[in-house]
Amino acid sequence: MSSVETKTYSSEHLRDYCAKVFEHFDVPPEDAQLASDVLAASDLRGIESHGVARLHTYFDMLTLGRINPRPTVKIVRQTASTATVDGDNGLGLVVGPRANEIAMDKASEAGTGWVSVCNTNHYGIAGYYVLEALKRDLIGWSMTNTTKLVAPLWGGQRMLGTNPIAIAFPGKKHPPIVIDMATSACAYGKVEMARRRGEKVPEGWVIDSDGSNTDIPEKMIDGGALLPLGSFREMGGHKGYALAMMVDVLCCVLSGANWGPWAPPFALRQEIPSRSVGKGIGHFFGAMQIEAFIDPDEFKNQIDDLIETFRNTKPQPGTNGVLIPGDPERIAYAERSQNGIPLVMPVIDELRDISRKTGIEFD
Amino acid sequence: MSSVETKTYSSEHLRDYCAKVFEHFDVPPEDAQLASDVLAASDLRGIESHGVARLHTYFDMLTLGRINPRPTVKIVRQTASTATVDGDNGLGLVVGPRANEIAMDKASEAGTGWVSVCNTNHYGIAGYYVLEALKRDLIGWSMTNTTKLVAPLWGGQRMLGTNPIAIAFPGKKHPPIVIDMATSACAYGKVEMARRRGEKVPEGWVIDSDGSNTDIPEKMIDGGALLPLGSFREMGGHKGYALAMMVDVLCCVLSGANWGPWAPPFALRQEIPSRSVGKGIGHFFGAMQIEAFIDPDEFKNQIDDLIETFRNTKPQPGTNGVLIPGDPERIAYAERSQNGIPLVMPVIDELRDISRKTGIEFD
Repeated sequence: MSSVETKTYSSEHLRDYCAKVFEHFDVPPEDAQLASDVLAASDLRGIESHGVARLHTYFDMLTLGRINPRPTVKIVRQTASTATVDGDNGLGLVVGPRANEIAMDKASEAGTGWVSVCNTNHYGIAGYYVLEALKRDLIGWSMTNTTKLVAPLWGGQRMLGTNPIAIAFPGKKHPPIVIDMATSACAYGKVEMARRRGEKVPEGWVIDSDGSNTDIPEKMIDGGALLPLGSFREMGGHKGYALAMMVDVLCCVLSGANWGPWAPPFALRQEIPSRSVGKGIGHFFGAMQIEAFIDPDEFKNQIDDLIETFRNTKPQPGTNGVLIPGDPERIAYAERSQNGIPLVMPVIDELRDISRKTGIEFD
Repeated sequence: MSSVETKTYSSEHLRDYCAKVFEHFDVPPEDAQLASDVLAASDLRGIESHGVARLHTYFDMLTLGRINPRPTVKIVRQTASTATVDGDNGLGLVVGPRANEIAMDKASEAGTGWVSVCNTNHYGIAGYYVLEALKRDLIGWSMTNTTKLVAPLWGGQRMLGTNPIAIAFPGKKHPPIVIDMATSACAYGKVEMARRRGEKVPEGWVIDSDGSNTDIPEKMIDGGALLPLGSFREMGGHKGYALAMMVDVLCCVLSGANWGPWAPPFALRQEIPSRSVGKGIGHFFGAMQIEAFIDPDEFKNQIDDLIETFRNTKPQPGTNGVLIPGDPERIAYAERSQNGIPLVMPVIDELRDISRKTGIEFD
């Protein structure tokens, strides 16, 4: 299907390499392992944009001293079911899992746990955190703001991140329902891919730097913006915008992080915002004990029934029918944990560049 | 703009009438008042489909004995931050506010409160409940499932309700951010309005009874379905579908209510589902103490700043620029609490029909 040249690596190999790179910057071994696990989960689940393809960006930020390799992650305020966490400008890949654990611990005590995090950085895929909650038989929630890329409805410039929302529910005999979605109409990676291929993008994905609709990917990349889920007013674009704003408030206003257009840049090529209204970016985690609401067996039986009911939906003509949220990532996981992670040459070149600069062997 | 004939009533007049109608069916006066308040809030906020326009449906359900006028709303399970509530098949307009209060009380004690409700009925606008939370300086969440009307992505039939999500955040000098959105691409009311006017609807709103895309409103109404927010795969239709499923799980699977296509009918013309998997429909309420996370003054100042920042977004050409979620409803409220509620003749006829059948004076 694709003629792009790739080379396949085992997930373990990539994970070891990432851990060594993090350790090179004085990240403690346990944290380096954790951060590499988050990246590996992304590649295994087929979300390539958020896996080792991002290692060079983390490498750049650590090289420049923009991320603290040895953060002291602190609870700065708490109640029985809540905490506000300061991530001490650590890797989001480390601060995120620690804060998520606090939410899960709170849930074990108070029925639910809710943690808003400031002074942190990009945390990988939102889905990683809700999968961790499933391991403890909890319903997990995860959100983060990200560097600006998306226009609000009727806005002509980047004001919001792609601000993902994840939540997962365990089944009994069926695999869990795992929702992990950006609140933009499409992923930035898809626009970039269209540009590389010289293709147009569908109307409703992007606007240009004037704020006008366009189908030319370069025009978005060159100072334009993505559109929120729903794209246009009559298609519900105000809803995707509202969800993205909700994520910003829960992650940033509640914790004291930089919301909206003031989120600090992730990659070097991104401009530094003209204002700072808080510390770092923000995350929001939730965990809910199923038993706090209903017998967990009863819950899981119903989830199984719901999954079967939705799989049995009459298919829309021309499609293979309804999927359950999490299906594509689960299928990718099964395939990739068996056969390895295919990387494209530009990503391999970046990993080799890190190897040259650090002396850590790759490949 | 509109040539539709309307007559305007004061909100108080309509509220009193609704309360008398509920009392006619032996609903206790306090509950009748509460239910009427929820309907009035909807009309005042310009969401006409969920206000007195629905009184005849409640009237029908009460006449047939399908709704319990004197429910005993009970907590059946709880922890410090959670409760599961059985609504005893009461009016959702009564069970909803009571359950929401439990969530708010829990938040005062444990930092947050989360309540899943079964054995209830349609609860009016989701936004009502989060406005109640604002009165107590809490961040409120509200969701409900509803009778099936929406197809999952790649499905060819109704499987989900329009399953709304609401959440609100208080500002200091600015009015609050109030998000209240169905998870479908458009509201059913808009399809019905297009049919009455003999107009087509945009592609991406609806499918016909075969599951094929159509722009003819009758084809949706006659056994077709609405599409989820995002409409199509490449525009993010899987995201709207996932959000609707999330609402079903939180409201119904967690409480023991009927999820997905098994939600009981609201109006008489709707078919009774072939299965029952729980009790009634379900709601989900959340309440979060702001102080549990951050100094409330600091929070509200940041919300004000965020509101100003987003209002100052460069407008998209051809639009008046960015709105803040809740703006349209707030503007409608200001206008309607001053000048009254304009009702269209079909709604007035229904209210008069109730008057004839109950002997309660109207108009």
